[in-house]
Amino acid sequence: MAGQASKDEEGGRHGPGPAMTLLLTNARILTMDGARTEHERGWLRIEGTTIAALAPGDAPQVAGAEIIDCGGDLVMPGLVNTHCHLAMTLFRGLGEDVDDRLYRYILPLERHFVGPEMVRIGTALAALESIMGGTTSVADMYYFETMVGEVMAASGLRAIVGQTLADFSPPDHADFDEGFARVEELVDRFAGHPLVIPSIAPHAPYSTGRAVMARIADWSADHPHVPVQMHLAESTLEVEWAKNTHAASTVAVTRDAGLLKPGLIAAHCLQLDDADIAMMAEAGVGVATNPRSNGKAGRGIAPIEALRKAGLPAGIGSDGAMSGNTLDLFAQFAPVSMFAKLRAGSRRPLPAVDVITMATIEGARVLGLADKVGSLAVGKQADLIRIDLSAPRLHPIYDIYAMLVFATLPTDIRATMVAGRWLMVDRQVQTLERDKVLADATQLAGQFRAEMARIDERLRQ
Amino acid sequence: MAGQASKDEEGGRHGPGPAMTLLLTNARILTMDGARTEHERGWLRIEGTTIAALAPGDAPQVAGAEIIDCGGDLVMPGLVNTHCHLAMTLFRGLGEDVDDRLYRYILPLERHFVGPEMVRIGTALAALESIMGGTTSVADMYYFETMVGEVMAASGLRAIVGQTLADFSPPDHADFDEGFARVEELVDRFAGHPLVIPSIAPHAPYSTGRAVMARIADWSADHPHVPVQMHLAESTLEVEWAKNTHAASTVAVTRDAGLLKPGLIAAHCLQLDDADIAMMAEAGVGVATNPRSNGKAGRGIAPIEALRKAGLPAGIGSDGAMSGNTLDLFAQFAPVSMFAKLRAGSRRPLPAVDVITMATIEGARVLGLADKVGSLAVGKQADLIRIDLSAPRLHPIYDIYAMLVFATLPTDIRATMVAGRWLMVDRQVQTLERDKVLADATQLAGQFRAEMARIDERLRQ
Repeated sequence: MAGQASKDEEGGRHGPGPAMTLLLTNARILTMDGARTEHERGWLRIEGTTIAALAPGDAPQVAGAEIIDCGGDLVMPGLVNTHCHLAMTLFRGLGEDVDDRLYRYILPLERHFVGPEMVRIGTALAALESIMGGTTSVADMYYFETMVGEVMAASGLRAIVGQTLADFSPPDHADFDEGFARVEELVDRFAGHPLVIPSIAPHAPYSTGRAVMARIADWSADHPHVPVQMHLAESTLEVEWAKNTHAASTVAVTRDAGLLKPGLIAAHCLQLDDADIAMMAEAGVGVATNPRSNGKAGRGIAPIEALRKAGLPAGIGSDGAMSGNTLDLFAQFAPVSMFAKLRAGSRRPLPAVDVITMATIEGARVLGLADKVGSLAVGKQADLIRIDLSAPRLHPIYDIYAMLVFATLPTDIRATMVAGRWLMVDRQVQTLERDKVLADATQLAGQFRAEMARIDERLRQ
Repeated sequence: MAGQASKDEEGGRHGPGPAMTLLLTNARILTMDGARTEHERGWLRIEGTTIAALAPGDAPQVAGAEIIDCGGDLVMPGLVNTHCHLAMTLFRGLGEDVDDRLYRYILPLERHFVGPEMVRIGTALAALESIMGGTTSVADMYYFETMVGEVMAASGLRAIVGQTLADFSPPDHADFDEGFARVEELVDRFAGHPLVIPSIAPHAPYSTGRAVMARIADWSADHPHVPVQMHLAESTLEVEWAKNTHAASTVAVTRDAGLLKPGLIAAHCLQLDDADIAMMAEAGVGVATNPRSNGKAGRGIAPIEALRKAGLPAGIGSDGAMSGNTLDLFAQFAPVSMFAKLRAGSRRPLPAVDVITMATIEGARVLGLADKVGSLAVGKQADLIRIDLSAPRLHPIYDIYAMLVFATLPTDIRATMVAGRWLMVDRQVQTLERDKVLADATQLAGQFRAEMARIDERLRQ
């Protein structure tokens, strides 16, 4: 349906750069503001990067404004992907059902191929998918993160780009000193960038260690505007590590290192007890839940209801496409909802409006961006998506949130805007060369396949 | 993306009726035959309703044949939806987060509105969505099922239409004698129909009772070609009923009534112990699992791995859109996979190829249609779908089954064929009037909303 139902006459009006004044009229508007205000039919005025006005009814005339009639389409905040490894999109579905694929394929392939060029291509493929999936902000953790920042800047997406630090000799640092140098380079490059926010990303407690976590906490105290991201309480192995090395929970080890602090973006958070949740709430961290990644790995269901009841903001993450296979958040909505209900054994937890809250304003809170994005309100950045509601699959519409959570597909999104700039119009991404990105990715995937064949051959001998 | 990448030159070639000879060339073919044969590039020849040939490479010339170049698209068997309540699509998302919505809204609305006209409109909306979602066979259970059969016949879908029998005074029969009369009417109308198969559908053990289940078993023995469908072991309430009234499991009660027999289509199957699974395997029943419906209700995870290991065929069902919100099976694939892995606490169970097997040939086995559909093989019915692989979201493609399970969307389907007839071409359904169906559904939904307001008003007083 998407694309076919597009309005040709608009094509020419969506320029690649921000218009000075843009009026979106005749839109069904979901603001996701504090009162969850909805307008059955309303309009938005965008000045440069910013929402200057929005209201129900007919738009007032504005001299010289570009006017886009949304024809009853839904306009809502762009989605916030709180956890991703963008470049790993190149590993999507690789060795899917091979039990030891991490050690057999992924780690050898990462050692062999991960460099600025692989990261450039993988991140571009991920940006293409993210924009087409209605994501407007994304938090990334990977290697050669300065390159990730470059690609994200070019794509026009809002991004927190996290340089990973780990002790397993990852592709871009032999030791933590080198890792910190990567972080410094990243911070220098993107300090003050309007869309790309540099970030430091200790991989996980067990792969960083308490001493280095303490060093990162100190560094972070000196760099209060650099977000910290980390995998936390993801696996039983991690729980065992914390117990064996520190006789404590992995959350307690992180707290003792000084890293459990306001603004920490904690991904996964599966293996938690009540004391851990209380510690996290007291520290004021944010949670990024990744249900498809966790579900596919059989790792369990995050206690999202308990975390949110304790006052922790929880956003939704796609994780890398190697783990979750897709990067759009629509694929995560039904799992987020179902997992909460299955965990509780009841239909009651996490109503649809809460899932959409998590994907927008609450996710923005997790990323420290809630003053800028996550809801449609005057003075906020114009990060929004326009959704075609014409598919039979969406009808009847009794409840717009339920429709979004359980029936809407990323292909229903007609247009994606970040900071007043259209990144996609009529399903066509404006900021990246789709064919070139796909060709580069396919070429690299061919090299991966050849290397996998060599690995299999060696293991047969 | 779908639609945009469509090939205009094909539009005129897809007639509404079956072509005498049709050649699909330049297709990536997934046969889902016993050997799971795949052709990276191949062709199919369709004569009338039937697959006459398929092979890798270039198609041989056939005089007078209509030729469709698939341009590298994937061609695979159409999907088999093993459990649905088509007309309930009109309740999609109604009272989504209202805790007592069944008693507060749904049952009163059913009493008020369910008649042949409501069933006609709801079934047509469901058929539209099913065709657009790549479903080619569907098993339905609802009321006024002769009308369901009429709509399905007009839509061109292959359908098992099950007249429900229940003791709670449902909309179309005050008692079981009337219910049986409905069944007889249905069987008379569709006996020998090429696509619509009449079926008898006791609602569930607790809402039918052992004596009536025994009566249905007797009737069924006299009508061996009429499939029997039933909800089985869906809820803890049902388990309690069986224990309290018969001091046995609900599966044992069903067996004792003589209804646990080869070909029984048993939907849900959540509340089972090992003895139940053994009974079901011995009886040779088939399972229809509905993960999104079960997950959304917080009811639990079906033991699909154990059921399949015991030799039971397991297909996938959407359930009604009131419960699962969508009717395409792509929305069920990731849940089917994740639920099996979560239940086992491991990445290992139910590889992607098994999920696609369940959705095609194994689902066909559940419905007793495996000799006709579910795989692409010479002599079988030409029930197939053509999928556009161009979306960035699908790339790279290392594993076509993982791509289908975790990344493909119903909107990637370009065309849907049943028995050699194109039901959808370039995302346009050929057999139903989309605008009319949507307008009818919207009009009726407005009446539902007004009645809901009256209900709320009465409850406030």
